[in-house]
Amino acid sequence: MGEASRDKRAALERLQAASRILLTSHASPDGDALGSELGLAELARALGKSATIVNHDPHPSSLAFLPGIEAVEVRSTLPEDFERAFDLAVVLECPDVDRPDLDGLDRLPILNIDHHLANTRYGAVNYVDDEAPAVGEMVLGLADAANVPLTVTMATNLYTALVTDTGDFHYSNATPRAFRAAERLVGAGAIPTAIAEHLHEHVPERVIRLTAEVLSTLEMLAGGRVALCWCDREMLERTGAKSEDTENLINIPRSIEGVRVAVLLKAFKDDGVRVSLRSREEPDVQQVARIFGGGGHKNAAGCTVPGSLPEARRALLEALLPIVESA
Amino acid sequence: MGEASRDKRAALERLQAASRILLTSHASPDGDALGSELGLAELARALGKSATIVNHDPHPSSLAFLPGIEAVEVRSTLPEDFERAFDLAVVLECPDVDRPDLDGLDRLPILNIDHHLANTRYGAVNYVDDEAPAVGEMVLGLADAANVPLTVTMATNLYTALVTDTGDFHYSNATPRAFRAAERLVGAGAIPTAIAEHLHEHVPERVIRLTAEVLSTLEMLAGGRVALCWCDREMLERTGAKSEDTENLINIPRSIEGVRVAVLLKAFKDDGVRVSLRSREEPDVQQVARIFGGGGHKNAAGCTVPGSLPEARRALLEALLPIVESA
Repeated sequence: MGEASRDKRAALERLQAASRILLTSHASPDGDALGSELGLAELARALGKSATIVNHDPHPSSLAFLPGIEAVEVRSTLPEDFERAFDLAVVLECPDVDRPDLDGLDRLPILNIDHHLANTRYGAVNYVDDEAPAVGEMVLGLADAANVPLTVTMATNLYTALVTDTGDFHYSNATPRAFRAAERLVGAGAIPTAIAEHLHEHVPERVIRLTAEVLSTLEMLAGGRVALCWCDREMLERTGAKSEDTENLINIPRSIEGVRVAVLLKAFKDDGVRVSLRSREEPDVQQVARIFGGGGHKNAAGCTVPGSLPEARRALLEALLPIVESA
Repeated sequence: MGEASRDKRAALERLQAASRILLTSHASPDGDALGSELGLAELARALGKSATIVNHDPHPSSLAFLPGIEAVEVRSTLPEDFERAFDLAVVLECPDVDRPDLDGLDRLPILNIDHHLANTRYGAVNYVDDEAPAVGEMVLGLADAANVPLTVTMATNLYTALVTDTGDFHYSNATPRAFRAAERLVGAGAIPTAIAEHLHEHVPERVIRLTAEVLSTLEMLAGGRVALCWCDREMLERTGAKSEDTENLINIPRSIEGVRVAVLLKAFKDDGVRVSLRSREEPDVQQVARIFGGGGHKNAAGCTVPGSLPEARRALLEALLPIVESA
C-alpha cells in the first residue's frame, strides 16, 4: 500500500496545483462514475478550485437523485475553448483515455484516478489502486488526505459509488476496506435506505410487463440444469419495452435452484438471434459462444446464432446440452 | 451505551457460569435467529460449555449453507429431561418468551439476548440493545468481550445474521455500527459473494413460474399511483407454488416508478380474499386495512375482504382510491 499512498499524495498535489478543473468519466456513466465525479468536484471546490463535470452520455434515471447532478454537462465533443478554460482534466474510473469518448481530452494535462488492474497509466499523474472497491472510495481517501471534512452531499455521492460498484456488497470487492468506507460515509450522513430506494425502486412499468412475458417462456432442460427464456420483437412492442430493458433479465432464470446454465434468446432482428449465456462455476459457456463466433468469459458469454427463433434455439441447444451433460 | 455495555458483561458472566446450554430463537427462524444461535453456540463451546440448539421449526432452504446447521434440533416440544440436561436457556432475537413456541422453556433460567425495543425483559439476565443492527452483531460483541477470536465459521454465521436482518444493508438499521461489524466479519473470513449467492440464488422454479403469472395480472390505477396484482388457487395449482411463496411478490409492483400503493389480492380460500397493501411514505394503508377489520402499520398493512375476487377487488378499491387521490 506504500505505492498507492504515494500516488494518492501525488494526485492531491496535482489537484492543488490546478485552478480550473474539468472532470469526466466513461461513456454511459454508472454509479461509480457519477458518484466519484460529483464527490471529487465538491472536494475540488472545497479546495478553492472551479470544477466542471462533462460526460459524453446522460445519467441513467435511477441516478437522478445524486446531489449536484443537474450541473453535469452532457456533450459529445469538448467545448471549443476547453484548452484555455481548464488547466487540468481529471479522468475517473477509466482504464484507458478513450473511454470518456471526448476527442482531444488528452490535450489537457490528465490526472488519472482509477481502480482497474488493466489501467494503461495514460495520465501525467496516475493514481491507480486496484484494491480499491470503487473509485468513490479513492475520492474519500483524497478528502481525508486533504483534511476536507465530509459533507452529507459528498457522502451521498461516494456511498452511491461504493454501493453500485460492489453490487450492494455482493461482489468480490465487498472487502473489509469497502465496509470501512461505508461506515465512514453513513456516519457522515449518507442514508442507505433512501439511496437503495432510488437505485432499485423506480423500475419502469414496461420492464415489469416485459419481465412477466419473458418469465412465462421459461423452459427447464437437462433435468433442471438449463433454464431457457426467450424474448422477441412482438414482446417489446406489446409492453413498450426497449431492447436494453432485457439487460438484467437473465439473472432471474440464473437464480433458480439447481440451474447451472441460464440462456436468454433475443429475436429482435431479422439476421439472427442474440444469445446470452450465464453459468454457475461449470460449464464454461464461452466454449459454446465461440462455436457461433461469439465470446465472453467462463461464466458469462454471448453470441449471435443465425436463423429464426426455433432454429437458433435448436442449434444452440445442440451445442450446449452435450457440454452441460459432461460438466 | 453504558447500559448496553453493562448488560453485555452480565450476559457474558451468566454464560460463563453455565455449563450445559440450550439455545433457541423464534419459531420460523430467519437468518438472524439461526446465524446468532450458531455463532453463540460456537462461542459457548470455545468457552468450554456444551451447547445445543433447539428450534420449533426447520430452517428455510436458503440457510442450509450455514456452518453447523445440521446439528440444530427441530422439535415441537422440549425433550422430557430438559431441566436436568441443561442449566441455562439462551433465547435469541425474541421480544417475548412465547416466540420460540417451546412450552416449559421458562422452567430453565433464561438469558435473553435481543435487539427489539419492545422486549419484555423476560430473562433472569437480559441483554437487550435496540441499537444493535442484528442479534448476530451482539454475539460478535460477546465474543470480543470474552476475548474469543473469530473463526471463519463464526464470521460466516454472524455475517449472515447481519446481512439478512439489515436487508442487504438496505434497511434503516444499516448504521455505521452495522458496517463496522461487517468489516470485522469479512476480515475474519466471511465471504459476502458466496453468502449472497446462497441467500438469493436458490429460488425454487415454482416461485419463478408463480411470479410470471402474478406479474401478468398487473393493473395500474389512479394514474399510475396504484399497482394491483392478484393470485388465486388455480395459479398455485398450475405452478406447484405454495401460499407462502407469494410472500415477497408485492415488492415487485411496489418497485414500479410512480407507484404510491401496491396491492396484492390472494384468493386462496372460499371465505374471502386476503389483501396485502404497501405504500411509499403516503398514504397510510393501515387506514384502509382497518375498514375491513385488518391492521398493520402506515406503510405495510393487510386485511381479509369477503366475497369473490372481483367483489373484493371492487370493495377494496372503493375504500383505497379516495385515500390515494387525497394523499
